[in-house]
Amino acid sequence: PQSPHETYFSAEPLDRLSAKRPDQDWVRSRLKGPQTVILLFHRLSPMMRDQDGDQEGESSAMQSRLCRFSHKEVEDLLERPGSVLVFLGVERRRPPPSAADGEPRAWFALGLDSESEEELLKRSCEKHSRFAQNAHRDLLRLSEEEAGVVAQARSVLAWHSRYSHCSTCGSVSRVEEAGHKRSCESQACISHKGVHNTCYPRVDPVVIMLVVHPDQSQVLLGRKKVFPSGMFSCLAGFIEPGECVEAAVRREVQEESGVLVGPVWYVCSQPWPMPSSLMIGCLTVAMTTEINVDQEEIEEAQWFTRQQVVDSLLGGPRAAFTVPPRQTIAHQLLRHWTGLSANL
Amino acid sequence: PQSPHETYFSAEPLDRLSAKRPDQDWVRSRLKGPQTVILLFHRLSPMMRDQDGDQEGESSAMQSRLCRFSHKEVEDLLERPGSVLVFLGVERRRPPPSAADGEPRAWFALGLDSESEEELLKRSCEKHSRFAQNAHRDLLRLSEEEAGVVAQARSVLAWHSRYSHCSTCGSVSRVEEAGHKRSCESQACISHKGVHNTCYPRVDPVVIMLVVHPDQSQVLLGRKKVFPSGMFSCLAGFIEPGECVEAAVRREVQEESGVLVGPVWYVCSQPWPMPSSLMIGCLTVAMTTEINVDQEEIEEAQWFTRQQVVDSLLGGPRAAFTVPPRQTIAHQLLRHWTGLSANL
Ligand SMILES: Nc1ncnc2c1ncn2[C@@H]1O[C@H](COP(=O)(O)O)[C@@H](O)[C@H]1O
Ligand SMILES: Nc1ncnc2c1ncn2[C@@H]1O[C@H](COP(=O)(O)O)[C@@H](O)[C@H]1O
Ligand SMILES: [Mg+2]
Ligand SMILES: [Mg+2]
Ligand SMILES: [Mg+2]
Ligand SMILES: [Mg+2]
Ligand SMILES: [Mg+2]
Ligand SMILES: [Mg+2]
Ligand SMILES: [Zn+2]
Ligand SMILES: [Zn+2]
Repeated sequence: PQSPHETYFSAEPLDRLSAKRPDQDWVRSRLKGPQTVILLFHRLSPMMRDQDGDQEGESSAMQSRLCRFSHKEVEDLLERPGSVLVFLGVERRRPPPSAADGEPRAWFALGLDSESEEELLKRSCEKHSRFAQNAHRDLLRLSEEEAGVVAQARSVLAWHSRYSHCSTCGSVSRVEEAGHKRSCESQACISHKGVHNTCYPRVDPVVIMLVVHPDQSQVLLGRKKVFPSGMFSCLAGFIEPGECVEAAVRREVQEESGVLVGPVWYVCSQPWPMPSSLMIGCLTVAMTTEINVDQEEIEEAQWFTRQQVVDSLLGGPRAAFTVPPRQTIAHQLLRHWTGLSANL
Repeated sequence: PQSPHETYFSAEPLDRLSAKRPDQDWVRSRLKGPQTVILLFHRLSPMMRDQDGDQEGESSAMQSRLCRFSHKEVEDLLERPGSVLVFLGVERRRPPPSAADGEPRAWFALGLDSESEEELLKRSCEKHSRFAQNAHRDLLRLSEEEAGVVAQARSVLAWHSRYSHCSTCGSVSRVEEAGHKRSCESQACISHKGVHNTCYPRVDPVVIMLVVHPDQSQVLLGRKKVFPSGMFSCLAGFIEPGECVEAAVRREVQEESGVLVGPVWYVCSQPWPMPSSLMIGCLTVAMTTEINVDQEEIEEAQWFTRQQVVDSLLGGPRAAFTVPPRQTIAHQLLRHWTGLSANL
């Protein structure tokens, strides 16, 4: 049952079967399964191909699809130095009775860094295959289901690419548990005593909030310098150690805009695999209205009226500003506040 | 304004003033401020002393207070190899006009590992000072305000103790930004290009959820092997890369109990500095009721009736099980469900 606030990147078409990860024999046999799908990533970009606009009419932008490989097609790449294989899960759909081995289809991600894009692209039998060039643009063109798979795959591969060494002693660490754990190669390292987060993928919780004016008819939006010109979005920031969600919302809003806020309501959440954030989306009501932006991070912040937000969500000539794309939780928070349905 | 769901460890009596962290001169001058408070930690345990029960009557267990040091009292310790100093923030209360320098009181945490406890305890002029021996017990005896300060301090110090090396290249890293950042000592390291989470404290988001029976009159609680005998609590688990909060709730409940759940509601959150979790507390409704525990993690799981939960929260001879202490978010979720006030 899809909630009204289901966000892009948060679909879970696969059952992760985390208990199976330590079972190397099982993982190896699933990897070789006749129906198994392997996704190829080059420096954290998945191989994909563009499709013609789908059938749903004018609102649909160009869609892309992930390129799918079988074990045979990429077997040699598994042995390349620096390659990382991650077991993503199995499809929740029961396999058709005709399925070759009666097992649900397993999915893996294979990450490669040192190979050339050309060498990898040559393996695709599909025309126009390419590697995503701009994650913030290209990864937003996938179907909801494929986006959900990429969210897990890209976050875990990004962790491997930045955490190849043990942070406790500096030794090299090795991949374990089907790509979901790293263990220090030094047997003397204290990381082997007890369970520590150093061995597990990192997820960074972030608060992102729509600040509502005390008069309830306006919201506070801001611009970072890196935004495309004309775009405004919700304020957001990393949750710090020792903070609850609500305290992080209060602190980040004050830091970035000078505005003090009161109560906080959770709305929805979204994994954001750039590289591995968990966006926690909230609504909050301001207690002060004077804006005083933190020039380091925010270029400009401004109160926008409900009408301005509606016009901007609808796009067209009356738009007061550019809204973030519909795949972002900031966009969903804006829609939520205006009371427009997610399909508008 | 304290929300009904304000949780232990989540008070923020200090303004973190994160923008000041890179300003070394400012930080050094606050460190030497005549009113400044420095907390001493030995292997992640704060120095504290026990107090007689407070005045609030029968329900109050023994309280503890943090030992506070001035710059002069610990100046020499700042130079010890391996010591880490973290700027925690300044008091939100305006200083009294009599305050020596008119500045709000600044707080720091000083973490030490290799000194002996005795050497450090000798510096305290207060009797019965000691280092917390069991974080899960001793840190729950602080006032709400001191617990909030310790939440930040212990999480950040725990990060320094496990992340002394650059996870990207294995070199030693150095402390920067008043204890809130680490940078790789190797100038050639790619971690210096762009902004990466490898340089910032880690916070691990965890979902913790009270699963309500489809008949709405029972809840599902479980026991880990390490729990004191008779204790049952909410199921909980780390959010994985690529998951939203709601998906993590569904996955962890199914993994740990075999129960399938439908809608999920966020209730409240709590920082848990053992070592650095963010507990995201939810309520969810089960769609199936048969229990099938994951023997690895959960020893036993069971449906409890509303009456059993109420009797157990009240304690005494009719308790069906031992509830987790009131300082835990699991306890607050149970209270929330029964509709009892937090002060019961
Ligand atoms: N986990 C993290 N990953 C990246 N940047 C972080 C992280 N934690 C704190 N930061 C800092 O936070 C800044 C972004 O600010 P904000 O998102 O508002 O918290 C970055 O430029 C970093 O200086
Ligand atoms: N960040 C983390 N810190 C510690 N353990 C983790 C982490 N992520 C995953 N784990 C694993 O999760 C187990 C606890 O299960 P759960 O809390 O139910 O997710 C631990 O024993 C570890 O094997
Ligand atoms: Mg920000
Ligand atoms: Mg921040
Ligand atoms: Mg910020
Ligand atoms: Mg668990
Ligand atoms: Mg887990
Ligand atoms: Mg679990
Ligand atoms: Zn190590
Ligand atoms: Zn490095």
